[in-house]
Amino acid sequence: MTKRQSDSAPLTHRWLGFSAVSSLQALKDRLAPIADLQRVMRILSWDQQTMMPAAGAGHRAEQMGTLQLLAHQLFIADETGRLLDEATREAESLDPDSDDACLIRVVRRDYDKAFRVPPELRAEMARAAAEARPVWVKAKADSDFQAFLSVLERNVELRFRYIECFDHVDEPYDILLDDFEPQTSTAEVREIFDELKAQLAPLIAELRNDDVDESFMHGDFSTEKQEALDNSVVELFGMRPDSWRLDPTVHPFASGAGVDDIRITTNYDPTTMKSLFSTMHEYGHGLYSHQLPRELGRLPTGAPCSLGIHESQSRLWENLVGRSLPFWRFFYPRVQETFPALLGSVELERFFAAINKVQPSLIRVKADEVTYGMHVILRFELEQDIVNRRLALRDLPEAWNAKMSEYLSLDVPDDANGVLQDTHWAAGMIGYFPTYLLGTVMSVQIWEHASDDIDDLEEQIERGEFAALREWLGERVHRYGRKFSPQETLRRATGSTIDAKPYLSYLNSKYRAGIIA
Amino acid sequence: MTKRQSDSAPLTHRWLGFSAVSSLQALKDRLAPIADLQRVMRILSWDQQTMMPAAGAGHRAEQMGTLQLLAHQLFIADETGRLLDEATREAESLDPDSDDACLIRVVRRDYDKAFRVPPELRAEMARAAAEARPVWVKAKADSDFQAFLSVLERNVELRFRYIECFDHVDEPYDILLDDFEPQTSTAEVREIFDELKAQLAPLIAELRNDDVDESFMHGDFSTEKQEALDNSVVELFGMRPDSWRLDPTVHPFASGAGVDDIRITTNYDPTTMKSLFSTMHEYGHGLYSHQLPRELGRLPTGAPCSLGIHESQSRLWENLVGRSLPFWRFFYPRVQETFPALLGSVELERFFAAINKVQPSLIRVKADEVTYGMHVILRFELEQDIVNRRLALRDLPEAWNAKMSEYLSLDVPDDANGVLQDTHWAAGMIGYFPTYLLGTVMSVQIWEHASDDIDDLEEQIERGEFAALREWLGERVHRYGRKFSPQETLRRATGSTIDAKPYLSYLNSKYRAGIIA
Repeated sequence: MTKRQSDSAPLTHRWLGFSAVSSLQALKDRLAPIADLQRVMRILSWDQQTMMPAAGAGHRAEQMGTLQLLAHQLFIADETGRLLDEATREAESLDPDSDDACLIRVVRRDYDKAFRVPPELRAEMARAAAEARPVWVKAKADSDFQAFLSVLERNVELRFRYIECFDHVDEPYDILLDDFEPQTSTAEVREIFDELKAQLAPLIAELRNDDVDESFMHGDFSTEKQEALDNSVVELFGMRPDSWRLDPTVHPFASGAGVDDIRITTNYDPTTMKSLFSTMHEYGHGLYSHQLPRELGRLPTGAPCSLGIHESQSRLWENLVGRSLPFWRFFYPRVQETFPALLGSVELERFFAAINKVQPSLIRVKADEVTYGMHVILRFELEQDIVNRRLALRDLPEAWNAKMSEYLSLDVPDDANGVLQDTHWAAGMIGYFPTYLLGTVMSVQIWEHASDDIDDLEEQIERGEFAALREWLGERVHRYGRKFSPQETLRRATGSTIDAKPYLSYLNSKYRAGIIA
Repeated sequence: MTKRQSDSAPLTHRWLGFSAVSSLQALKDRLAPIADLQRVMRILSWDQQTMMPAAGAGHRAEQMGTLQLLAHQLFIADETGRLLDEATREAESLDPDSDDACLIRVVRRDYDKAFRVPPELRAEMARAAAEARPVWVKAKADSDFQAFLSVLERNVELRFRYIECFDHVDEPYDILLDDFEPQTSTAEVREIFDELKAQLAPLIAELRNDDVDESFMHGDFSTEKQEALDNSVVELFGMRPDSWRLDPTVHPFASGAGVDDIRITTNYDPTTMKSLFSTMHEYGHGLYSHQLPRELGRLPTGAPCSLGIHESQSRLWENLVGRSLPFWRFFYPRVQETFPALLGSVELERFFAAINKVQPSLIRVKADEVTYGMHVILRFELEQDIVNRRLALRDLPEAWNAKMSEYLSLDVPDDANGVLQDTHWAAGMIGYFPTYLLGTVMSVQIWEHASDDIDDLEEQIERGEFAALREWLGERVHRYGRKFSPQETLRRATGSTIDAKPYLSYLNSKYRAGIIA
């Protein structure tokens, strides 16, 4: 009955289409639609957090599950492996730094990792994370860790099963960390964090200044005016409205569908003007995504390098630019014009001191530059204890509170302000937190080199000019995409791998120099 | 090297997952992700027309192409055919009206159709349509048909190749029409349209009233106030903000990702308040999608029946409700409150006459209820001439203008206001236009039956109550989804198939009764 005008070869063979090409090109043709699916998921996730009517969550979970499964199955199909093997042979003579040689290395790593994890386990991890989230939301609202414990246990247990999929390693945490900061060992992170911890403790004790007046940072900062201000700052930084959006959300994030479709978000609290710092942070993420190598757009190498490198870009714009005196010399008059009643009579020096006030506090995302590191180190250490089975999850609040007391001299009043504050563990994301501090440390290394290369960077910023900085970051960091490891990317940008010293000396010079009141 | 913990069966086999189920269930499991992909495309299309930064169009085209290809390839895979054959045998004893029996019929039709068209031709049709669109936009702006002719020729030529994929039929137009209004023949449409044409011509001549004052419909109708008013009307109709959105766009449309995620759009022109009618129209589309059978959500039968049935729902809310006197008795005071300077001194009767003014005009989407039909009939007749090769495309403007003169006594001043006004042909959509008028005709049949079943429907509307109407439509039309053909769906709702008489007598009684000034 049916006139069949097309053959019915399985998808994996049909995929390649209709022309004879090299295995390398065929591999790229196979990978491109997988990149498309991943970008579609990013847009759907953005939509869910900014636009979707609440009741749509059920449909969205099904749709995301389908896209995830399709992307995974296309990637781990035998055909991908066959093409990868053939392309590897084809590419043997290539310059190892060439786009194609890098692509083959990256795909080989991804493919070997993806293959080890059974789809059933992957599906269960995704489901457990999705189901844990509302439980966490409620437990946090009720400050009730017990109500969260069983879903946390399930998520952590699944991570142990995940670790078992891989060859034995001395530090099982290496396997989890690799999903967020690839090719970076727990030992390397520990070394950096130990160095930081030793110096941050006395620095915090010395620099904390609870008496800095920040009363004027609280008041009637209308959302409409903050929106206008935040839009003006990212436009000043270089956000182009034909390829970017800035929208409100609950928890700020950056997303997008490619270099020409960047979506950043922020959260407006009408009682403070702190959205501005979130917005500058997300701008940094967005600029990285916007300046990724266009010619590698639909390949795994056209993606961001790692969460740590990503965070180095957001922290650079939030802190090195956004909490610097040159920037505020330029921008503060605009803020005063926007909020004349609240800030008209507050001098730049007082404002600058307030936005850089050093004071230990309970919540990581609200921490100042000096105390921030200890929040991450605390989490990293607890994750070590969990993964090495030195700490039962039921004892986590007690361990958390003890470290908060030891590192920041703070009593944790309840779990909502303690162990329940972040969503990461509820989503099973163990190994994610260290990337925040790695990124912060790297941001200063990158900044120092940008300052060396751009003669009058401070003066440019004081004039509200950011083109040279954007271009330098594009040329020295962003253009490598995921071609190299995070540390190799950093080395190409700065001449060295990660180093705590520039960060520590930045804190010392900024906060001891007497600029901060 | 790599520890393989998952087999590498091709996607089509892997797909079924991990449990032994009936072929019918396996078929459903195979179809569900295809429905997910289609819904994802709908959200991406919504995003493109409401949110996406303009420069993102290139990424979006790649992503849509990938989703389209994946959905198509999953559907036409041998495995689908095998499961369909097995499920057909399993379901032989089922009640032919049961969900499962309907599903098998619908999938069989879709599968046989999908299989006949080579993927290369499908891809070329999609590409030609995408490439024609900007050419059409420019040609329309310049009112230059010659600049559009070659891309139109390419699109039409591809439709001839499409028709050749199918068994010979007496009327090749049947094949094109089936993609928009399935299981409906050209002969059936022609019969209805001929009947309409014979009566509409004298009706228009009699009812046209160029002197009705509508000057007060033009003025400073601020977008903000229109937005508030449009939101209030759809909330009144029953739009629930937890599962719907209303956003501005250039060309209004309805979309969504499932019954709990409905997105409607409208266009605000600050010089008239006509957005309200677009919004009511799109509400009708949205309500249909919102009330589709939830239990069939991820199956082909859980989708809308046809474009004609869809349009019957939008026209019902736009015209039968939204241009009725009972509705405006209730709602007009709110409009006057919103625009006191413009409408405060305009009586209901004058306003009602203005929104129902009968006057032949050049543009279909701006046409009144009485003249609207002739715009569609004109297009249908030209499409007949094109598909039957009786009309060369270069002669299309002349043919268009001749018919406009004959049917509506209008001189077409330029092609922008004539043959270039609609986007459909630029996208290769021949066979789409008749569904507008079929839907309009059916909307009156459905309305009459709702009025018979709901005793005090007019009084309810005059009190601003729409729940009974919504429920009736849900129960009598929406809940069938795509289980039956459009005409069988209409028969179940109203007891008869399509009939021009109720529509003609509605026009006669509404416009001759003297209610309209």
